Amino acid sequence: MARVIVDVMLKPEILDPQGQAIARALPRLGFSGVSDVRQGKRFEVELDGPADEAALSDVRKMAETLLANTVIEDFTIHVES
Amino acid sequence: MARVIVDVMLKPEILDPQGQAIARALPRLGFSGVSDVRQGKRFEVELDGPADEAALSDVRKMAETLLANTVIEDFTIHVES
Repeated sequence: MARVIVDVMLKPEILDPQGQAIARALPRLGFSGVSDVRQGKRFEVELDGPADEAALSDVRKMAETLLANTVIEDFTIHVES
Repeated sequence: MARVIVDVMLKPEILDPQGQAIARALPRLGFSGVSDVRQGKRFEVELDGPADEAALSDVRKMAETLLANTVIEDFTIHVES
């Protein structure tokens, strides 16, 4: 049993209105020193078995087809220890 | 200039219908071996200065008041290297 994390973020060239709204709200709320905020998604995928190469390849396919829209989003995969 | 990551996930005892929908869709799409999926949010916060203790304390306050609903969500903060 292993947990694999898939982080999905908008590609850098894609505008992120949610992140911008947060970044713009911060000074109003008394927070300074933040130049940018980007918001994305995080998926925790619990595997029945170990996070071996076959399982990670499956998770990669899953991310490409289901979790991320690869036209506008990038994803990274890592095993949580 | 440093980047701090804030991961926000529903607390374990809170139902996650989005994650469940994904987990249930997987077998239909030909993926097996996944026992659970949980979906959360990931924020990339770009700081003007270094990620020192004061800045991280600010980000923690930001997460508590703005990025996470601490009644139903947990968050973790880490500096991206």
